[in-house]
Amino acid sequence: MSVTSDNGDNPDAGCLSGVRILDLTQFEAGPSCTEALAWLGAEVVKVENPTGGDPGRGAFALPGGLDSWYFLLFNASKKSVTVNLKDPRGVELVKDMARSADVVIENFAPGAIERLGLGYDVMRAVNPSIIYAQVKGFGDGSPYENNLAFDMIAQACGGVMSITGEADGPPLKPGATLGDTGTGMLLAISILGALYRRKGTGKGERLQLAMQDAMLHYIRVAFATQASFGKAAPRAGAKLLSGSNPPCGIYPCKPGGPNDYVYIYTSRANPLHWQRLLELIGREDLIGDPHYATGPVRAEREEEIDVMIAAWTRQHDKHEAMRLVGAAGIPAGAVLDTEELQNDPSFAARGIMQTMAHPTNGDFKMPGWPVRHDGATPALAPAPLLGEHAEDVFGRWLNLDSAAVDKLREDGVI
Amino acid sequence: MSVTSDNGDNPDAGCLSGVRILDLTQFEAGPSCTEALAWLGAEVVKVENPTGGDPGRGAFALPGGLDSWYFLLFNASKKSVTVNLKDPRGVELVKDMARSADVVIENFAPGAIERLGLGYDVMRAVNPSIIYAQVKGFGDGSPYENNLAFDMIAQACGGVMSITGEADGPPLKPGATLGDTGTGMLLAISILGALYRRKGTGKGERLQLAMQDAMLHYIRVAFATQASFGKAAPRAGAKLLSGSNPPCGIYPCKPGGPNDYVYIYTSRANPLHWQRLLELIGREDLIGDPHYATGPVRAEREEEIDVMIAAWTRQHDKHEAMRLVGAAGIPAGAVLDTEELQNDPSFAARGIMQTMAHPTNGDFKMPGWPVRHDGATPALAPAPLLGEHAEDVFGRWLNLDSAAVDKLREDGVI
Repeated sequence: MSVTSDNGDNPDAGCLSGVRILDLTQFEAGPSCTEALAWLGAEVVKVENPTGGDPGRGAFALPGGLDSWYFLLFNASKKSVTVNLKDPRGVELVKDMARSADVVIENFAPGAIERLGLGYDVMRAVNPSIIYAQVKGFGDGSPYENNLAFDMIAQACGGVMSITGEADGPPLKPGATLGDTGTGMLLAISILGALYRRKGTGKGERLQLAMQDAMLHYIRVAFATQASFGKAAPRAGAKLLSGSNPPCGIYPCKPGGPNDYVYIYTSRANPLHWQRLLELIGREDLIGDPHYATGPVRAEREEEIDVMIAAWTRQHDKHEAMRLVGAAGIPAGAVLDTEELQNDPSFAARGIMQTMAHPTNGDFKMPGWPVRHDGATPALAPAPLLGEHAEDVFGRWLNLDSAAVDKLREDGVI
Repeated sequence: MSVTSDNGDNPDAGCLSGVRILDLTQFEAGPSCTEALAWLGAEVVKVENPTGGDPGRGAFALPGGLDSWYFLLFNASKKSVTVNLKDPRGVELVKDMARSADVVIENFAPGAIERLGLGYDVMRAVNPSIIYAQVKGFGDGSPYENNLAFDMIAQACGGVMSITGEADGPPLKPGATLGDTGTGMLLAISILGALYRRKGTGKGERLQLAMQDAMLHYIRVAFATQASFGKAAPRAGAKLLSGSNPPCGIYPCKPGGPNDYVYIYTSRANPLHWQRLLELIGREDLIGDPHYATGPVRAEREEEIDVMIAAWTRQHDKHEAMRLVGAAGIPAGAVLDTEELQNDPSFAARGIMQTMAHPTNGDFKMPGWPVRHDGATPALAPAPLLGEHAEDVFGRWLNLDSAAVDKLREDGVI
């Protein structure tokens, strides 16, 4: 399946062929959302500031003014036009684009889109069928509705940090950018739902998602713990918030580097996991021993059991440990780092990592959309250069010829 | 917007009104996906084992045989029928249901659905327009394609744990269940894309997602770090993997409890954040001081700066600190725990937390779908009791009358 929709009406171009997304987002929460839609075949047009564009291009800047890796990661398979939104003609241009778009999406600071004259009421008047989607840090009606937010703020205020860290240590921020990409994925789901209904009815819709609110969706197991114990879910290191069915956790492997660990999980639902593990580590003597027979009794000697497992895992590297424990029918996983994942040939062979052929940055191997559609993941197209698609998009969307586009450029409108 | 689709054809029942999902999933990765679709208005019918049903019902079991909170959280707004898949008549019943379904989804252990006689080839033969979606731990073609996986295994093998934890400590598991719900959300996006295309074309599709592969999508900022430094992204506690623009991180507040911290972030892109913070904490003397003027020079004295900020934050509780720092125009967020979130009236007032009126468990306040559609989040309906909807679903989907359903029950087929 290809996701490049050069003319917006190629029936083989993916699930969302012909769908036009007017993308006013920047950084990650919004761009991760529209990138997913681009990978499914929508034509996503980024509208960027003529002076520098999406600030994500310059965040974690590379030498020579190249776009950042961060930008490439979150803007693959999109198009770019520049529009000066401080010029009233620029604002009119965006409204003209909204007339032929299916979806408009923005994640500016609170109040900014309205100040630009591109708020929901304006856009709905221009195009009553528009799906108008917004990401903010905090929800309308929240005490913090006017506050700025970034990924880490959402993870702090949305409970994620409170349940991440060692039991006796401070809260930590997970490395995953749940506040941004996690939010973007939930908004993508609602946009797709709205598109589905609109296809039959022509009904437009306003969608709003706050990053803080989105976090609750990802920590619902902690709310189960909260409900069970009637108090705040704790931090549990690498173990489970709900209490473990020991052994469960990470165990050190040789040669002892920072990520040389294997996760081993023995399930409450399958008592054979424990028995199989005893056989594997050569402790058949404990099979059936009532001091170790059930999860609750093992919980009383968890530390002792962890030491016993670690004595075995230390004799193996993490890959071997994962193979041996997994082959014995016990869930296990090596702790893999980004370098190992980046270089693992399985991801490229299976289309999970793909190489973006970028015109200035060169080849960049990165994770694409991980879902296989009829056996293959969507093909990755490059992230756009700033304003690269002006003639293409203004031509097809607005019927402007290249002289008209040149004039807009000369006038500083784009 | 209501999400209960009692007859499957109510035009006011949400974005996915009329869409039928045959749901063979259990635990969290699959159920989180189908629950999102239910919240958008699809009719989701869980097909469960007559003896106990989805094992998630009994995981973290409650006294008296009640369904677990965990089950309620991931199965709101769905229906339930029981089918004995070890009986050939049960397998035929599911194939009959697939004839009138739009989507089939499963997350059994590798190979199990094929052994049941309900693999993709079988289902496609029954219904060529079916969207057939699968979650596995590892992808087809991965060295671990036959391994079991759970949330924590995916987080270990998908890089998430390697970037979570203190810089000098072991890898940790984020409290958020990215391996499960994070996977479920990506599959929901692809299902919705496939539904959108199918609405025009009738084209069925096979969708496959591995939990390990899904993790890469959520740690792409770490892949930017990997690309920049050419080595594995590190762990960074509560700070940023990419290196901070100090000050950035959590700072202790009074009264010093385990979650009494405020996150403060001064952005690289906005040098005013630092200046405003100095004014707030009464250190105007440092404004313009070249030893503190830029991110790079502050990075050299990050520890000293953190001590300076903490001296101020310790004088405030986290809510006050968030208010004061936020009001000064600096991104800030209190670290909130599940108890605070559960009891915060703002979430209920805004429809983010809703109360499920469950027939046996009673009222249960839980997070629902956080996206507002035209101003309101979808209303929450209860998670189903085991087999609750047999007459309803077999009646409407298969035209079976209640005598026929009784017979199936007597025969042990359902």
